[in-house]
Amino acid sequence: MTKKELIVLEDLLGTNKKIAADIRAALGARGILAVNLMSSPGAGKTSLLERIVERLKPRARLAVIEGDIETERDAERIRAKGVPAWQITTGGACHLEAKMIGKLLPAVDPDIAFLFIENVGNLVCPASYELGEHLRLVLLSTPEGDDKPKKYPKAFTTSDVLVLTKADLLPYLPFDVEKAKHEALELNPRLKVFVTSAVTGEGIEPLIDWLVERRGSLAGHA
Amino acid sequence: MTKKELIVLEDLLGTNKKIAADIRAALGARGILAVNLMSSPGAGKTSLLERIVERLKPRARLAVIEGDIETERDAERIRAKGVPAWQITTGGACHLEAKMIGKLLPAVDPDIAFLFIENVGNLVCPASYELGEHLRLVLLSTPEGDDKPKKYPKAFTTSDVLVLTKADLLPYLPFDVEKAKHEALELNPRLKVFVTSAVTGEGIEPLIDWLVERRGSLAGHA
Repeated sequence: MTKKELIVLEDLLGTNKKIAADIRAALGARGILAVNLMSSPGAGKTSLLERIVERLKPRARLAVIEGDIETERDAERIRAKGVPAWQITTGGACHLEAKMIGKLLPAVDPDIAFLFIENVGNLVCPASYELGEHLRLVLLSTPEGDDKPKKYPKAFTTSDVLVLTKADLLPYLPFDVEKAKHEALELNPRLKVFVTSAVTGEGIEPLIDWLVERRGSLAGHA
Repeated sequence: MTKKELIVLEDLLGTNKKIAADIRAALGARGILAVNLMSSPGAGKTSLLERIVERLKPRARLAVIEGDIETERDAERIRAKGVPAWQITTGGACHLEAKMIGKLLPAVDPDIAFLFIENVGNLVCPASYELGEHLRLVLLSTPEGDDKPKKYPKAFTTSDVLVLTKADLLPYLPFDVEKAKHEALELNPRLKVFVTSAVTGEGIEPLIDWLVERRGSLAGHA
């Protein structure tokens, strides 16, 4: 990277960080817990969200922001669950940025308890851009392989939670859950780990209970 | 994106394209077919390459360049097959660039017939950077879902070949091969499609035969 490129990138990241801090503070003051979901394409972010929103909806008001390069497909899947969802299509950009979230916020019901933001499917770039979230979840699906944390470290070092997805496929794969956990925890010992399946529902309730608890401590401090 | 950012990006892409064109011409003149493999993390690029190199090695001289954010793991897997491999670790960057390949080329045996380049696992950014390849392969693994081509279109519109991987998992997944093919071909009708499994070996021989044929026509024109 040339010096000029580096300066432009640093400007961009600095501005993004400031906007993100403002969003985080504004949402926190309202008792809204913002959750940023990151993963490779097809690791199961939308499927996990479908399971979360259908179980969390009777307990709390929710909204979802979906990020994708193209198509409204993911927002439509969430709306089909009766939860308001906005689709951001980046038109090529490989990650969401805080300003995209900031633009949408005036449209979001201010009385929600949870705002879920599904990032563009990419295990690299989204890790560098805070969106104003209180919690960052990185998903790793079992078919991707248990060697991924150290190959894509930033997604794991910057996250609060590791959600192993597609646990229902474990019988057909060489994926070693303990190895993947161990590798992720070596990078980031404060990661909270959940093993889940959107097909069988495994691990979804514990994850929801934990999110509710986290939201409780947020509201308590507001 | 601001105007300044856009100018820096255009400079970068323009310079990359020129370096890539030089690499392509130099390799082509020597009868070396260069193949760039792109996909999401964990879609099976290295596993596909393992199957290709063990079967192609008795027929032709090969070399492999592996791209990753961190770790030498993939190059080690290829070397274990008795094929020379170089690892480029980008240290954070989300794609390979032509200049990285250019720096390595003096070390590569000039009498090889095939140079395989495995890009960083990312279905977005690598699509914008030519590396001097003659053929670009995009891999889509069955667990990622059949809806991915239109959500990540550039990887599919800029590729010559679509390799559907992990076909052995089809009995356990809702993946519709015809739907995925159809969606990819709508984006790019000239895509050649192979359905493969690195576990069962399905589709590997037809892919190798096709690569050998493509290399033959390259040598014929050199």
